Amino acid sequence: MSKNASTPPHDQFANKSQAWSARFSEPVSDLVKRYTASVGFDQRMAQVDIQGSLAHADMLESIGLISTDDLQAIQRGMQQILQEIQDGKFEWSIDLEDVHLNIEKRLVELIGDAGKRLHTGRSRNDQVATDIRLWLRAEIDTSLELLRQLRHNLAALALKHAETILPGFTHLQVAQPVTFGHHLLAYAEMFARDAERLQDCRKRVNRLPLGAAALAGTSYPIDRERVARTLGFDSVCRNSLDAVSDRDFAIEFCAAAALIMMHVSRLSEELIIWMSPRVGFIQLADRFCTGSSIMPQKKNPDVPELARGKTGRVNGHLVALLTLMKAQPLAYNKDNQEDKEGLYDAADTIRDTLTIFADMVNGITVKADAMRAAAMQGFATATDLADYLVKKGLPFRDAHETVALAVRTCEEQNCDLADLTLEQLQSFHASIENDIFDVLTLEGSVAARNHIGGTAPERVREEANRILWETQN
Amino acid sequence: MSKNASTPPHDQFANKSQAWSARFSEPVSDLVKRYTASVGFDQRMAQVDIQGSLAHADMLESIGLISTDDLQAIQRGMQQILQEIQDGKFEWSIDLEDVHLNIEKRLVELIGDAGKRLHTGRSRNDQVATDIRLWLRAEIDTSLELLRQLRHNLAALALKHAETILPGFTHLQVAQPVTFGHHLLAYAEMFARDAERLQDCRKRVNRLPLGAAALAGTSYPIDRERVARTLGFDSVCRNSLDAVSDRDFAIEFCAAAALIMMHVSRLSEELIIWMSPRVGFIQLADRFCTGSSIMPQKKNPDVPELARGKTGRVNGHLVALLTLMKAQPLAYNKDNQEDKEGLYDAADTIRDTLTIFADMVNGITVKADAMRAAAMQGFATATDLADYLVKKGLPFRDAHETVALAVRTCEEQNCDLADLTLEQLQSFHASIENDIFDVLTLEGSVAARNHIGGTAPERVREEANRILWETQN
Amino acid sequence: MSKNASTPPHDQFANKSQAWSARFSEPVSDLVKRYTASVGFDQRMAQVDIQGSLAHADMLESIGLISTDDLQAIQRGMQQILQEIQDGKFEWSIDLEDVHLNIEKRLVELIGDAGKRLHTGRSRNDQVATDIRLWLRAEIDTSLELLRQLRHNLAALALKHAETILPGFTHLQVAQPVTFGHHLLAYAEMFARDAERLQDCRKRVNRLPLGAAALAGTSYPIDRERVARTLGFDSVCRNSLDAVSDRDFAIEFCAAAALIMMHVSRLSEELIIWMSPRVGFIQLADRFCTGSSIMPQKKNPDVPELARGKTGRVNGHLVALLTLMKAQPLAYNKDNQEDKEGLYDAADTIRDTLTIFADMVNGITVKADAMRAAAMQGFATATDLADYLVKKGLPFRDAHETVALAVRTCEEQNCDLADLTLEQLQSFHASIENDIFDVLTLEGSVAARNHIGGTAPERVREEANRILWETQN
Amino acid sequence: MSKNASTPPHDQFANKSQAWSARFSEPVSDLVKRYTASVGFDQRMAQVDIQGSLAHADMLESIGLISTDDLQAIQRGMQQILQEIQDGKFEWSIDLEDVHLNIEKRLVELIGDAGKRLHTGRSRNDQVATDIRLWLRAEIDTSLELLRQLRHNLAALALKHAETILPGFTHLQVAQPVTFGHHLLAYAEMFARDAERLQDCRKRVNRLPLGAAALAGTSYPIDRERVARTLGFDSVCRNSLDAVSDRDFAIEFCAAAALIMMHVSRLSEELIIWMSPRVGFIQLADRFCTGSSIMPQKKNPDVPELARGKTGRVNGHLVALLTLMKAQPLAYNKDNQEDKEGLYDAADTIRDTLTIFADMVNGITVKADAMRAAAMQGFATATDLADYLVKKGLPFRDAHETVALAVRTCEEQNCDLADLTLEQLQSFHASIENDIFDVLTLEGSVAARNHIGGTAPERVREEANRILWETQN
Repeated sequence: MSKNASTPPHDQFANKSQAWSARFSEPVSDLVKRYTASVGFDQRMAQVDIQGSLAHADMLESIGLISTDDLQAIQRGMQQILQEIQDGKFEWSIDLEDVHLNIEKRLVELIGDAGKRLHTGRSRNDQVATDIRLWLRAEIDTSLELLRQLRHNLAALALKHAETILPGFTHLQVAQPVTFGHHLLAYAEMFARDAERLQDCRKRVNRLPLGAAALAGTSYPIDRERVARTLGFDSVCRNSLDAVSDRDFAIEFCAAAALIMMHVSRLSEELIIWMSPRVGFIQLADRFCTGSSIMPQKKNPDVPELARGKTGRVNGHLVALLTLMKAQPLAYNKDNQEDKEGLYDAADTIRDTLTIFADMVNGITVKADAMRAAAMQGFATATDLADYLVKKGLPFRDAHETVALAVRTCEEQNCDLADLTLEQLQSFHASIENDIFDVLTLEGSVAARNHIGGTAPERVREEANRILWETQN
Repeated sequence: MSKNASTPPHDQFANKSQAWSARFSEPVSDLVKRYTASVGFDQRMAQVDIQGSLAHADMLESIGLISTDDLQAIQRGMQQILQEIQDGKFEWSIDLEDVHLNIEKRLVELIGDAGKRLHTGRSRNDQVATDIRLWLRAEIDTSLELLRQLRHNLAALALKHAETILPGFTHLQVAQPVTFGHHLLAYAEMFARDAERLQDCRKRVNRLPLGAAALAGTSYPIDRERVARTLGFDSVCRNSLDAVSDRDFAIEFCAAAALIMMHVSRLSEELIIWMSPRVGFIQLADRFCTGSSIMPQKKNPDVPELARGKTGRVNGHLVALLTLMKAQPLAYNKDNQEDKEGLYDAADTIRDTLTIFADMVNGITVKADAMRAAAMQGFATATDLADYLVKKGLPFRDAHETVALAVRTCEEQNCDLADLTLEQLQSFHASIENDIFDVLTLEGSVAARNHIGGTAPERVREEANRILWETQN
Repeated sequence: MSKNASTPPHDQFANKSQAWSARFSEPVSDLVKRYTASVGFDQRMAQVDIQGSLAHADMLESIGLISTDDLQAIQRGMQQILQEIQDGKFEWSIDLEDVHLNIEKRLVELIGDAGKRLHTGRSRNDQVATDIRLWLRAEIDTSLELLRQLRHNLAALALKHAETILPGFTHLQVAQPVTFGHHLLAYAEMFARDAERLQDCRKRVNRLPLGAAALAGTSYPIDRERVARTLGFDSVCRNSLDAVSDRDFAIEFCAAAALIMMHVSRLSEELIIWMSPRVGFIQLADRFCTGSSIMPQKKNPDVPELARGKTGRVNGHLVALLTLMKAQPLAYNKDNQEDKEGLYDAADTIRDTLTIFADMVNGITVKADAMRAAAMQGFATATDLADYLVKKGLPFRDAHETVALAVRTCEEQNCDLADLTLEQLQSFHASIENDIFDVLTLEGSVAARNHIGGTAPERVREEANRILWETQN
Repeated sequence: MSKNASTPPHDQFANKSQAWSARFSEPVSDLVKRYTASVGFDQRMAQVDIQGSLAHADMLESIGLISTDDLQAIQRGMQQILQEIQDGKFEWSIDLEDVHLNIEKRLVELIGDAGKRLHTGRSRNDQVATDIRLWLRAEIDTSLELLRQLRHNLAALALKHAETILPGFTHLQVAQPVTFGHHLLAYAEMFARDAERLQDCRKRVNRLPLGAAALAGTSYPIDRERVARTLGFDSVCRNSLDAVSDRDFAIEFCAAAALIMMHVSRLSEELIIWMSPRVGFIQLADRFCTGSSIMPQKKNPDVPELARGKTGRVNGHLVALLTLMKAQPLAYNKDNQEDKEGLYDAADTIRDTLTIFADMVNGITVKADAMRAAAMQGFATATDLADYLVKKGLPFRDAHETVALAVRTCEEQNCDLADLTLEQLQSFHASIENDIFDVLTLEGSVAARNHIGGTAPERVREEANRILWETQN
């Protein structure tokens, strides 16, 4: 191959729509240009685009396709471009369509012919796939760190409230007493699974598509494994057609992000209900709330509400990507350009949300009295009364019926089981004695549930400590 | 009410997070501020926000709540603000959270006390609902106009190709011959339904929420019907709680937009297949295509591909909005701030796409020879052969079996029915005579389907002319 | 055309996979047969399939394609088949693939040759499209009736509670007092829009595709308008390719159904919260609740919870149908068989849900005391205090700050504004006098919001009566 | 605890709606009963429900809560129930609401008191969560086996066609020649990732929720790890509130299933296009196709079309489940009953689809001539011509432009590059010599792409053999 093999003339990038002009008789309209250009949103991959190009150049030099001088020039040029971008001085042009051509043109301006040799043995199809994977890998690592922090903060608060009792709800009805620490640790479990899923997703993100070229591979003797090592990829994609058309990783990430946001939405729902004045279990720190210009008394849990709403956004991106890929024939189609905005937004949404939630957990003020009062109100120890009767010899079923009648009476009298007199209780079953009032204590109820996963304070402390240890920095 | 009733002090807008400061002990962090602010995307409603404020001010003056001088000052101030925004000189501040507070603060800067009286009897809850409806109404009108143009161009091309024959496919197998004009008019029907749906949606968009205030209405003697008339609303929302929390219209619009994009995706799929070299039925004008830097021979149908991909985006927004509203208690919750970005993007997507497609239809070059060749190839007149046999007295079922055998033979010999000799045809059934070759013509086949909705050229011309008349400017 | 033209041999239906056997060398496997058959779910269209066939037969007779004797035989045969189906005696066969072939085969068994002439001039493609539309039209009419009943019951309850005060929430924080009647009427508005949407959708459902045949129309001189009149269709589909491939109406219906379920989910969320013991605003009749085998005290709002969950189901069907149709080339593809199950389930879901909710509204027991207590608790009249101060001459902004300080004090003292003494109130502003305690009444607050859409009892009664009149049977 | 502790009276199951009757004053209506019952669809978990109950009973016996006699009775009773279900003789009753109560009632009928002791220390909340996980784990294992078979069959066909050349498409335009084996292996890669994802999902499915009881754990000294071992779970869920409310695994499975179907939809799209007569690259075995009753020549790729359509169904279930779980407060809510039908259907859909596709791959007949002809037609070696010119010393950019002009000329003359004479080629560039015609061969083009992931036959054979080895039974 002659030295000038891949050297394009100096003005090739002057206008991207000119790049294939020899065969085209008509210019692209401004609207079409805007409709088809991606530089408005793919700029954010500039850094990884440069990172990928440097690894590619290093490999080209290693197999002798470019000279060491060329490599150094490319490194110098890219360094400057990176600086220009960071300083906000880089001039992005929609005529150059995407981040790749914008950077490549600037490189040629800066270093001339060496820049023109960079694109040897690759295509934008495998280049963009590499960029997205590099970018997404970093986002995943950030999210993993944020999940760690969030779980740490949840566990710390749980440890503090290992004995604080609130009603455990099913159907938003009071079911049985649980500890607030136990309740918080349920979320720590959810976010642990989210972290697992991101790690699993990361394995499939971290494979190198570069070398697939347009779709079939390249005739140059490239060393893909060297590039993979340089960029920290675990392995290389083993089929070029698949490598340029695969967007599974983006969908898998969005699915994992949708689960994160679903968990966030559940926590948000509870925070909002807990802050509602009739419930009043907690307060959130003011910095996560806003007031109202028209109603001076309001303290609105804006952040949980907005986070709850953002669930929809991520679900939407997941659907968008699944729809996008449906029934696309191999290999690359222009449809795929639509993969980025939703993916970016999904990543941004979980990053911001997890950051704020990790902080917000620390800003929860627990109103233990209100929690306790609520646990007393909703017949939360009815099961314990049934158990008491069973221990007195009643069949479980009869015990169940007896308690149900007692509850109905309480409801009619608008009181709790604990408010009944011994005489009243005995009217439901003669076997009831004075020790019944010990059984109806909330502390006894939670302490008795003392096995793995149970709500007993002892177990909650154990779990909280385990998670604190696991998530220490 | 004293004259100064709604007069805030001069610095009330200096920092939105100060607006409720008296009760809050902690400032909002920068990230939380960014997370909860909407001014980054709701700026685009500035013009309708001003339009709504002017109508509100006019009403306040009409019932004596503000003076004529105040009204004129507000009108002057808003005029200047509008100009500043159009000139790109308006300074948007994230501290002021949203488009409403940004504009109101500037108004107070410009005209003082009169500006402070504008917010009397309204709240941001009903203000933003009004703004979105005004904005969406205009978007719908634009889309209706674009659908009209697109249908007009489809009908014009259909009229030109009322006799151009191509294979009608079912299962992407050649079924029966149809005319290209008939095929195009199928899309004109789809887009007609889309227009109907947008018009139906518009009825429900065009109702005035202003006057609902925060959620319960206001104690001022407002005249909502006057505001409705001024702003061109058909009626007023009849329940204040519903008025501030209703986002049905946004979802209904996205559903209509999703159907538009679904139709676009079908047309795109066909354009892409028709441009594929093995099919080669059409060419698209160069301005809707791009080439490839690595493969100089490529002419890629970028615009249809991208449009096909954008189907996912709009489906995603629809899902996002449905998820957003699921199980929200009344009335306004902060979640609702999430309604805008998806809605904006859905509207932008169909506007750009319809604009480009209306133009692209005019840029279709039909390759009638390839179409005709394809119609000849796939046994498209097999039904006609069956009909011929039926007319010769064969039971339909026997005719069907006979034709099936003939087709099988052709497939083995890699030829079409019309390529068989009379002798070969007679080997399938003795009744076949020389007139069979008239029956196998494509022209005869299409002309025979001459009823409302049929593919006969006469009907296609009739329909195309009807649509041209309907869609004339 | 000879009399036997469309007469198939007697055993043509013996096994559907034999129908095209002459050309096929290999039988369909059992799994493939099951995978591709629809008779398992499209049976439910049997009645409309027969209805459509009868109208088609009537038309064939009217243009002389079949004899009057044939028509009468078809009518007799179909009557018997309908009876067999209603009696559960009809033998459905998966070998005959779908409802159409099952019925047609039975008809031929019963009446012989006349049955074989029925399929003249139509295809399963336009037949199934007609069936779905007939079926869906009836479902829409049922849903409209159910929405009417539900709105009627909401309005009746609203009238009863036109003066019952509960806190109006924004952000699930107490905002301003509203009446329970007003709150209920917000849902009456939502369901009114739902009814409008179904009526709009019905217009597009109620067009006749029959006559499109496989995709291109038919060469028989059919009278589509006669069929349309017989079946009660408003018009005929004007393009055969569109007629067989259009499934817009199914998607539009699912979108309307998704909005209905979204509204149901909001109402359910509120019912669930209102039934939670800390809130206790209402009770639901026992028949909509279940208990717990383990916790005898529970009364779980199962129906609202399940309805809330079913929101997802209908959203899912909407997404499924949009995905299904994405990028399908014209005309009919087998994909379309997937249109039915989701559509059926969406219709079933809203039918059952609306039926139950119409009844459940009548089973709401209002606990007015709890509502009132809650309205007193959350500083609901803070806006009214601000208004009072404004009337005393304070600028609105100063009034706002003053009230905010008062609220903060109350929060610290865990009391309401109304619980402060005159002295305490005067410490916030000297202008406050004894008449302040009138202003802080809930009744005064709601009565003042007396304009269209406002929460004043007078308005609520007016609206409730209007809706009762509109929805009377 | 007395021996009779958990003994309910004999008729407790006579009617489930009686179970909590003591407290309820009104029976559940038939519609409400049907609306809230799950036995219509959760019957399919009968076997795993019994499996779980047996493991629970074994544990209860091991800790002395039930006697060995009781355990043996339970084992005998369950054996009989299983047999009754398999024989279709089990009487399911909607009055008993779900699979759990139906089985438990029958057990009590069969073995009396021992059956009544089975429910000790568990609740339906943790029981159903356990059942779903057991059922889903088996479904995942089946899907993994099917993916293995499908990949095996793809690799076998790929090995056979390691040298069969067809055009590689981008944008459905001919890009560069690839081998059919290479193309097939792209799908083997996709399905490999699908298997990885299912395995990752399986880890999170395979954790035991039993022991969480209703939501807080139980006061009995249960041994959860023993149950986990018996049932083959990897570990136990570590938080009871999370254990009963977690449905992540169902969503994660649906997301993985959606990706599988997306891949299937891409393969289907290609099979459909490849079978279209203008393309004609393959035939599918007749057993995956159907004919048409009206068009005897049709051979429709029904199975790929239907599979493509079923993509929507699984996407829909994914959306349904995400919507279902959005913003649900802890712990169990009745909404969760809606988790099953979609999950079942997603599992059924991928099982049937993968089974059929594994078989269908073996039924692909390759038409190598048509593939080759297509590769020759679309300027597929234009890149190779550019490379040739570059090797002659031209700058890449000039080479690109030169080839573009040549392509344009060919397009105008409706011929391929290889059809040009040497003189014509030289008119584009004088350096072109007679060896150019070697360069334009398809074989040379594919053989040159000889690196990991490239399309060279050598590499395809290597990969195919690797996959065959990996997927051997």
